[in-house]
Amino acid sequence: MTDDELSQLSLEVGQRLQRLHATVTTAESCTGGWIAKVLTDTAGSSQWFERGFVTYSNDAKQALVGVSQASLESFGAVSEQVVREMAEGALKQAGAQYAVAVSGIAGPDGGTAEKPVGTVWFGLAAAEANSLAQRKIFAGDRASVRRQATAHALLLLRDHFLKN
Amino acid sequence: MTDDELSQLSLEVGQRLQRLHATVTTAESCTGGWIAKVLTDTAGSSQWFERGFVTYSNDAKQALVGVSQASLESFGAVSEQVVREMAEGALKQAGAQYAVAVSGIAGPDGGTAEKPVGTVWFGLAAAEANSLAQRKIFAGDRASVRRQATAHALLLLRDHFLKN
Repeated sequence: MTDDELSQLSLEVGQRLQRLHATVTTAESCTGGWIAKVLTDTAGSSQWFERGFVTYSNDAKQALVGVSQASLESFGAVSEQVVREMAEGALKQAGAQYAVAVSGIAGPDGGTAEKPVGTVWFGLAAAEANSLAQRKIFAGDRASVRRQATAHALLLLRDHFLKN
Repeated sequence: MTDDELSQLSLEVGQRLQRLHATVTTAESCTGGWIAKVLTDTAGSSQWFERGFVTYSNDAKQALVGVSQASLESFGAVSEQVVREMAEGALKQAGAQYAVAVSGIAGPDGGTAEKPVGTVWFGLAAAEANSLAQRKIFAGDRASVRRQATAHALLLLRDHFLKN
């Protein structure tokens, strides 16, 4: 997805949130703020986005969005359990209706046999719906993995929670 | 500055931070996470960047980085006082050696005679040096103002605190 396509997606997400009088928040590890940047590309985004968390380290995941040390130790930062906790913690901390969380291995280092470079977990939480987690394994270099992860997070939000 | 130039600047900032065994954190309003995104473009950035705050609303500025309600009311969110408090609050909250804060009016709405669209305040704080604030008025549309603000924040960090 190009920058223009990302901005277009942000516009669409924003229109749907606005229709619902709802807000979204973000908890980002490997995307490092890119999702928040794309959301705020849209003029008037302050109506449906009011804070985001860049939780790059494990300490930050615990301090800012309440991820448990037990989950980090048992499952690792790139795991279903941790992205669910990131999304649920961000939702609560921000008092938002929706939250998107991302944790992955953008590379070039940090990959393992079990979790190769390109592995990204997505967590979505909502005030009035069940949370969702999904894993993707993206091909490409660091920039490409991060871009795909940013796009996928917004697509998941749009297609799962903001269908109409 | 192009995306590639921003990434190059991030690399340079990262190398200097690494040499100092120092970390940086971010508190972003109008740039909405773009500075954090650019910092984490750099592979290995977890060594010198571990969290960032996207404090888009006034509530978020207060809750996440401890900006005072009095300053928001007296001076407005786009002011020297508020960016200084954002930078100092982020520095403390993150336990970082350096912090960069940005608050501005990216447009197209929100401008006034006193603070036209393009007005951006930058705040820099350091654990062992005096803080710094600077105002710029950028020309161009929303995307251009945000891009220039992102670049300028990183240039200020590099040239003020990371000269060598």
